[in-house]
Amino acid sequence: MESIGFIGLGHMGSPMVQNLLNKGYEVFVYDISQSAADHLVALGAKAVSTIQELAKQVAVVFTMLQTGQQVSEVYTSEQGIFKALPPGHLCIDCSSIDVVTSRALHAIAQQQDIAMLDAPVSGGVAGAKAATLTFMVGGELENFERAKALLSCMGQKIIYAGPAGNGQAAKICNNMILGISMIAVSEGFILAKKLGLDPKKFYEIADNASGQCWSLTHYCPMPGVLENVPASNNFTPGFTAAMMLKDLRLSQAAALESATTTPLGAQASVLYSLFVNEGHADDDFSGIITMLTSHNEL
Amino acid sequence: MESIGFIGLGHMGSPMVQNLLNKGYEVFVYDISQSAADHLVALGAKAVSTIQELAKQVAVVFTMLQTGQQVSEVYTSEQGIFKALPPGHLCIDCSSIDVVTSRALHAIAQQQDIAMLDAPVSGGVAGAKAATLTFMVGGELENFERAKALLSCMGQKIIYAGPAGNGQAAKICNNMILGISMIAVSEGFILAKKLGLDPKKFYEIADNASGQCWSLTHYCPMPGVLENVPASNNFTPGFTAAMMLKDLRLSQAAALESATTTPLGAQASVLYSLFVNEGHADDDFSGIITMLTSHNEL
Amino acid sequence: MESIGFIGLGHMGSPMVQNLLNKGYEVFVYDISQSAADHLVALGAKAVSTIQELAKQVAVVFTMLQTGQQVSEVYTSEQGIFKALPPGHLCIDCSSIDVVTSRALHAIAQQQDIAMLDAPVSGGVAGAKAATLTFMVGGELENFERAKALLSCMGQKIIYAGPAGNGQAAKICNNMILGISMIAVSEGFILAKKLGLDPKKFYEIADNASGQCWSLTHYCPMPGVLENVPASNNFTPGFTAAMMLKDLRLSQAAALESATTTPLGAQASVLYSLFVNEGHADDDFSGIITMLTSHNEL
Amino acid sequence: MESIGFIGLGHMGSPMVQNLLNKGYEVFVYDISQSAADHLVALGAKAVSTIQELAKQVAVVFTMLQTGQQVSEVYTSEQGIFKALPPGHLCIDCSSIDVVTSRALHAIAQQQDIAMLDAPVSGGVAGAKAATLTFMVGGELENFERAKALLSCMGQKIIYAGPAGNGQAAKICNNMILGISMIAVSEGFILAKKLGLDPKKFYEIADNASGQCWSLTHYCPMPGVLENVPASNNFTPGFTAAMMLKDLRLSQAAALESATTTPLGAQASVLYSLFVNEGHADDDFSGIITMLTSHNEL
Repeated sequence: MESIGFIGLGHMGSPMVQNLLNKGYEVFVYDISQSAADHLVALGAKAVSTIQELAKQVAVVFTMLQTGQQVSEVYTSEQGIFKALPPGHLCIDCSSIDVVTSRALHAIAQQQDIAMLDAPVSGGVAGAKAATLTFMVGGELENFERAKALLSCMGQKIIYAGPAGNGQAAKICNNMILGISMIAVSEGFILAKKLGLDPKKFYEIADNASGQCWSLTHYCPMPGVLENVPASNNFTPGFTAAMMLKDLRLSQAAALESATTTPLGAQASVLYSLFVNEGHADDDFSGIITMLTSHNEL
Repeated sequence: MESIGFIGLGHMGSPMVQNLLNKGYEVFVYDISQSAADHLVALGAKAVSTIQELAKQVAVVFTMLQTGQQVSEVYTSEQGIFKALPPGHLCIDCSSIDVVTSRALHAIAQQQDIAMLDAPVSGGVAGAKAATLTFMVGGELENFERAKALLSCMGQKIIYAGPAGNGQAAKICNNMILGISMIAVSEGFILAKKLGLDPKKFYEIADNASGQCWSLTHYCPMPGVLENVPASNNFTPGFTAAMMLKDLRLSQAAALESATTTPLGAQASVLYSLFVNEGHADDDFSGIITMLTSHNEL
Repeated sequence: MESIGFIGLGHMGSPMVQNLLNKGYEVFVYDISQSAADHLVALGAKAVSTIQELAKQVAVVFTMLQTGQQVSEVYTSEQGIFKALPPGHLCIDCSSIDVVTSRALHAIAQQQDIAMLDAPVSGGVAGAKAATLTFMVGGELENFERAKALLSCMGQKIIYAGPAGNGQAAKICNNMILGISMIAVSEGFILAKKLGLDPKKFYEIADNASGQCWSLTHYCPMPGVLENVPASNNFTPGFTAAMMLKDLRLSQAAALESATTTPLGAQASVLYSLFVNEGHADDDFSGIITMLTSHNEL
Repeated sequence: MESIGFIGLGHMGSPMVQNLLNKGYEVFVYDISQSAADHLVALGAKAVSTIQELAKQVAVVFTMLQTGQQVSEVYTSEQGIFKALPPGHLCIDCSSIDVVTSRALHAIAQQQDIAMLDAPVSGGVAGAKAATLTFMVGGELENFERAKALLSCMGQKIIYAGPAGNGQAAKICNNMILGISMIAVSEGFILAKKLGLDPKKFYEIADNASGQCWSLTHYCPMPGVLENVPASNNFTPGFTAAMMLKDLRLSQAAALESATTTPLGAQASVLYSLFVNEGHADDDFSGIITMLTSHNEL
């Protein structure tokens, strides 16, 4: 069994490490927050003092960070992974970052004969805990095959999206559709209600018609229609509005970079930005429905 | 078996009448185009000279017209249905019109003890021919029960949406979600392609992820991904861009009337309007994807 | 001097009546609120009990009401003006209402040989008090000439916009541009500030460049740039967000009615709707700038 | 008189050099297109073979290039300006590029004691020829003072916008307002016309009212309202749609970079993108009005 390094032990990284430990892997952990690391060491992980100390002891390095800049620094700085990791070893970046940065990292890794995958996830904190994440993976196919079993310890669907950066591309394109359709479904329910349609009746109709979408069927934003979704639990996340905004901004950065026209992606990004501006960063992203109506009308 | 009247014998009305004839119903037909009526008379329908002549001979009147104004006139003018139809008889308006006009007709019908249903359809010309339409029905429940068997001659799903006008409300809310999600899916595929993702690969990923929606799964706008959809057949409709624009404008009229905020519904209406302005009224509505990119890039 | 009737004595109507009284006119007043009428009677206006009592005693009737439905009722109901006003007399509707309703009223007036003008105003409560309103007037030119002196008692610019309804059309088209440009200027200042430009410096630059517009030059939404504008006075109106939203919705109703594509008009309408949803109906309309940023950043 | 270097001799750069020559300056020129350089040499400019040869002979270097990447390369590559220019000399980048790249260049220049200004222009090719450009200048005030006389040879308004990058910031914020207001004015005129208002009448009204803006007053997009504007000359530029799209994309890149919400800036960017997609890159940017209506209606 290969030994694993894991850098970035936040809401997502921490339960992912626990799943690796549960499967019997030896996991070396690092985070700028010492307490995040301590928590996992208490559960059986191994402590290291620096990123490079970690890189020298493992065959596979995972990163799960917030921004492209953080990821770049962790891999390419003087104190970073690439300066310490032997050729042939494998890096898997599970962070959601921009495609340009991701592809730049792949290129540098390749120059050093380091195997690299971008493997952003969907499924949220709940999926990380339950080991039911979806991984969308970009990089060389042989590296994907090598990583598959390992990723399966933390996720349910492990999807190969093609060459370097395609995991990031797949995720932001999918989540752009998701963000738009969540707003679309919200608008549909609000309008239906204003016109006198019972929300459960409209759910039944649209779920069986051409308006069907995942946002409606599995994550309906109208409170009281589905049980066990954030909308029926005061919009407790789930997947926060701030996270959706981050992904929408990544989609808009990619659209700008590639001169692509995304009218509703742009609009969805604006709407989530207004929602976050109003203080709802930590609400579930389906809470956007509350912005479409005066607060006492829902 | 009740005798049926059918007013409005266009692309939708004509095959609907044929399905009623096939089931053995006696159908009296009327259209301002004599040739449209003649065609059905040759197939066994009964000719009448005026709307009121029709109204006097049937127990159930269907209307399938283009605009709220036409529907109003056919029912409420001096030469209209309501002046000739006996109390207790049933009117079923299958046109897609605005909720306000529809509810006004219900109110007038009720004053004359005429049973009324609004029953707009989805499924397009293909669904009309194959008798696989979906009917979204508004009005009193007992009238719905009375109409159900009859509607089943022309459609597969007969859904009760609640009181007067709710059929129209359900249709425009569903189709507003449809129009938005068709654009969302188009943006997703265009961006994915620009970022280097194979369209079939992106289909596979999004179809199994949170971006899934009917527009993607069953009607994918990216040419070459699905067979037997308009996108793979030069955007031959199907459901035309002009029809989608009509439904989106109905949604925006309802939103204005009810002071509802529909940001993406408004934007989708603008985008289909620009698409129709550019000469694409008769293209399939999934053809909106061609507007998002220079024409030679798809 | 002709005697005047004035119906609708709210924030706008009341000071308008006072200006007519100041010029020496005899003014009969009516409002559903008795106290609004009493206030003006104390200042010299004449009381009436009903709209028709008023109509019988005056040569010119002004209306200044909230909605198209109210205006229709006041003019065309059984107890309305048209049933009591002698031919040849003049009606001037100063309300801001939809073009369709306005033109329908003109048509009915014409059938009864009543002279009619639509004459919506801009300038707000301050303009009404100072008699500096702008009137945009639609109707026959001879009626406009007849009304000009009278309107000049209440306003500074009296503009003839053409045939029936054109006053309403001019106002909503102008205010649609105003609403959009207010948001545009707000976005420009917010972005400039985020990029490190001093707001006063950016004002100086844009005011002398191609970004110049009335919203910037005379009504700058960035607090602290201009004195004596709502932005520098906690967004105390001025012209409320609710009034701007009303005009934008009228523009969108006119766009729908005439199948016109107004992408930014639609978007501005959505943004003011979100702003009003958040509880800012009574803020000045330039307060929309606060929605574009987290509240503590401005 | 200082000797000048000028790199980038396109539609803008070429007439700018001619104006410097006209004032008696010695100008060394460079362009990747030899013929562009030859043309100016025939008019009295001095030829050089490389950028660094140029840099070694002049006191002030101007650059007028297309993209941030080109500008970066010209200044910072091994064969670039910074490797050859002595300390104390002055660089003025007149290109319109993103703020981040511009500020990065300033920082590098400062490390080498090179004086740097960003000085993007407005006024287009016509302004470049007539020496009536507006320069928006960012950098240290003393450098601005040093450059002022020189810039005045090519422009009419030389505006100081503050520290490094603020020239770029001012330009994109101004042009974002311009792009939005051009669309707003277009929508206003189209709607006015559809509602039956004479365009010249609407111009007169809005120009004197709160809808007034530079796009309307000086550059009215409705054909036939103003003489000597592109709208009355088949939308011959002027300022092309492609250039407006470039500036709007720069504004959106800056907005993403600084997490700023620009709803109408995003929408304007989308609309110009659709317009360029349809083949109108080289039309004047006021031609966007033609996209808002079927082509035969204007």
